[in-house]
Amino acid sequence: MRCFDAHIHAEGRSIEDLEKMSEAGVKYAVNCAFYPIIPKYPETFLDLFRKMTSFEIEKGREAGIELYPALGIHPRCIPPRYEIVLSEIPEGSAIGEIGMERGEKLEIEVFEAQLKIAMENDLPCIIHTPGKMKEEITKKTLEILEKLSFPESLGIIDHVTATTIEDIMERGYHCGLSVQKGKLSAEDALKLVEKYGPERIILNSDTGFGKAQIDAVPKTYKLISERLGEEIAKKVALENAREFFKI
Amino acid sequence: MRCFDAHIHAEGRSIEDLEKMSEAGVKYAVNCAFYPIIPKYPETFLDLFRKMTSFEIEKGREAGIELYPALGIHPRCIPPRYEIVLSEIPEGSAIGEIGMERGEKLEIEVFEAQLKIAMENDLPCIIHTPGKMKEEITKKTLEILEKLSFPESLGIIDHVTATTIEDIMERGYHCGLSVQKGKLSAEDALKLVEKYGPERIILNSDTGFGKAQIDAVPKTYKLISERLGEEIAKKVALENAREFFKI
Repeated sequence: MRCFDAHIHAEGRSIEDLEKMSEAGVKYAVNCAFYPIIPKYPETFLDLFRKMTSFEIEKGREAGIELYPALGIHPRCIPPRYEIVLSEIPEGSAIGEIGMERGEKLEIEVFEAQLKIAMENDLPCIIHTPGKMKEEITKKTLEILEKLSFPESLGIIDHVTATTIEDIMERGYHCGLSVQKGKLSAEDALKLVEKYGPERIILNSDTGFGKAQIDAVPKTYKLISERLGEEIAKKVALENAREFFKI
Repeated sequence: MRCFDAHIHAEGRSIEDLEKMSEAGVKYAVNCAFYPIIPKYPETFLDLFRKMTSFEIEKGREAGIELYPALGIHPRCIPPRYEIVLSEIPEGSAIGEIGMERGEKLEIEVFEAQLKIAMENDLPCIIHTPGKMKEEITKKTLEILEKLSFPESLGIIDHVTATTIEDIMERGYHCGLSVQKGKLSAEDALKLVEKYGPERIILNSDTGFGKAQIDAVPKTYKLISERLGEEIAKKVALENAREFFKI
């Protein structure tokens, strides 16, 4: 079994943690940019991106995981003078984690600026939806994507739940299912795959700076494989991600 | 058993790793500043220090370890315009990890500037010695300390070996024994404690961005306790550090 974990934050993880993920079956992962406090300086992001495109890739390789950096500004850590950061964002394999947390003016401005960069550079985007006001922010996210005529093939809307999946599927975007405490259980993910089919559904663990089930994707793969067959499991835990991220 | 690990880099470690350290017996640790690539921007250090004095302390607490931030510029990651960083260095519980890697002009300049800050602010300093040219750089380090009349009570020279310990002990500084692959084994540390006595010897694991024996201090504690008695083990694995760092 070879899995693709489509959303992690490797900076919050030791090389031994990545080794355990690799042993569990995770062989590819998208490493999304995040800073666990709000940086006072946009330059912090520039060095973070350099670290993610060099040191972190090496760390992953040593642990047996191919890490693809997704660069971007998360709505929870927007630095002052964020414009300085934008020009470096196309240096990654994808753009992320971007999106909105509370739907405020600055968040929308930063989100839209990054979506435009994705369109100009034909780069896939990992779009966060928050724990609170999930439905409202998802709706607003879809409106922004529509307003910009953002291509379906470049957008994965992440941390999707039973209450948000339908709208996203209808609009043709990809759905990220985060199997993690406080988000979805493996059983929840299974039910969504069962109901909506495996097309455009991509699993991730959101492993990062807090406690995490680092083997969430392989575990969910096994459950889906047992209940819905290996072909479907393989699609949501590997193939859809490889296709979406063009890897 | 309660241990003090006098030199770690918590940024390279997940909360689960810190929990394992805590379960093994590490209840206090000095978290030394380091950036795993050379930052292009000194501002990166300013945000790193803010992260170390907020987010990392919280992470440690959640895992059961009291983390004391040692702020400073390591010789392997000196940023341009490093002067900008200096004014924030006294915000930590200690200064570190500072020192020299190859003994070059810029390294000496940055090292001396930080030693002066330590003297002005009466802050304990963790002084790195490199894997290569260990004896030569240790000698040079002692010369610089002497030149500045650096107080013995504020200096721990770290990654000490059988070939460097004697000079440091003679000059009255503290010796950091790093029990880690490629550095000392627990057996090596035991022998040094046996030969030189427990005064001014402080154990650490140097757990950080690479693979590490995260329970090195508790393991060495047990070995020393078995062979030289609990009182001596307690001194080098807890009490000397608490005294030196004034905790």
